Amino acid sequence: MTGTTARRRGRPRREEASDTRDHILTVAREEFSAHGYEKVSVRGIAKAAGVDSALVHHYFGTKEQVFEAAVEVAFAPALSAQDALVDAPLDDVGERLARFIFGVWENPATRTPLLAIVRSALNNDTAAAVFRRLIASQLLRRIAGRLDVPDAELRAELAAAQLVGCAILRYVIKVEPLASADVEQIIARVAPVVQEHLTGP
Amino acid sequence: MTGTTARRRGRPRREEASDTRDHILTVAREEFSAHGYEKVSVRGIAKAAGVDSALVHHYFGTKEQVFEAAVEVAFAPALSAQDALVDAPLDDVGERLARFIFGVWENPATRTPLLAIVRSALNNDTAAAVFRRLIASQLLRRIAGRLDVPDAELRAELAAAQLVGCAILRYVIKVEPLASADVEQIIARVAPVVQEHLTGP
Repeated sequence: MTGTTARRRGRPRREEASDTRDHILTVAREEFSAHGYEKVSVRGIAKAAGVDSALVHHYFGTKEQVFEAAVEVAFAPALSAQDALVDAPLDDVGERLARFIFGVWENPATRTPLLAIVRSALNNDTAAAVFRRLIASQLLRRIAGRLDVPDAELRAELAAAQLVGCAILRYVIKVEPLASADVEQIIARVAPVVQEHLTGP
Repeated sequence: MTGTTARRRGRPRREEASDTRDHILTVAREEFSAHGYEKVSVRGIAKAAGVDSALVHHYFGTKEQVFEAAVEVAFAPALSAQDALVDAPLDDVGERLARFIFGVWENPATRTPLLAIVRSALNNDTAAAVFRRLIASQLLRRIAGRLDVPDAELRAELAAAQLVGCAILRYVIKVEPLASADVEQIIARVAPVVQEHLTGP
């Protein structure tokens, strides 16, 4: 495959490599979403992507690193929103955070990879470690870093617990009436709770 | 096995049947905890329990019904607490509910089956349906039934979301510092939130 594309004229090598890498990530995300972390292998991803396993290892390393890269890509469209979120005024961080989380879950394009992450993390320690690194270190630590209280990290995690619990009961377990409720009705109730966890007494 | 025990003198048949039934449930709970709903079969449970598959079907019916019975048994030690909880004064229901949930998760005897339920429910629709019936209909509906507000069920589910999210981040994903925090420190922060969801404005 690399040989064929390398012969196309006027196309720089760097871009080709980037295309192949993106293609592998897209396939990896689909595989992890459909089957969960444990049942997916680097060999299976390579086969589905039409490349050699060695190329997958070359770009990403281990299966854990492929998973982490696939998951990071899933969050990519929301990363700018996340920056805005972390830098926003603290007095409406609860609503901004709730809107951000429900936004990525309501969007079908990001919901599927999120389901894969949640399902994988609950059944596999390696996937759980990836979840911890991404969620805890990227988003929660940054928000906690802005809070001027001694238990800032615990508060940020309890706020996250409210949002993670909502996502699981609404989108995974599908408990009614939560699963069918209007998302604005949910945000109206959840945002003040998140705000209270972060900046309350 | 039934034949052998039936020959023991002075032991009524009803008690024997109850012993065998309990033994199958104990084994089923261990199997579901260790392997998750999807990977467990009625045949596998029967083999591990040293009985015929037909006996498991006779007592419980389908695999789904075995799972539900195993899960109900896991909640059994807490059922009296649950009754007291639902009947308690509404003005401290938040703390009582938080103490009840963290109590069953902190207890190793009930934590293992709970892990099996959560993991199974997130990866299998049948197990999710059992989770919905047990959690939503038994505990949440009863609490919601005491609230004199139009969105009582949604409020009860959002309160549950806070507690489910805490349990998942603390006991399954093990995010720090939440995983190692003193449980009283967590209850002190979570109980007012649960109370607010249920009886707040």
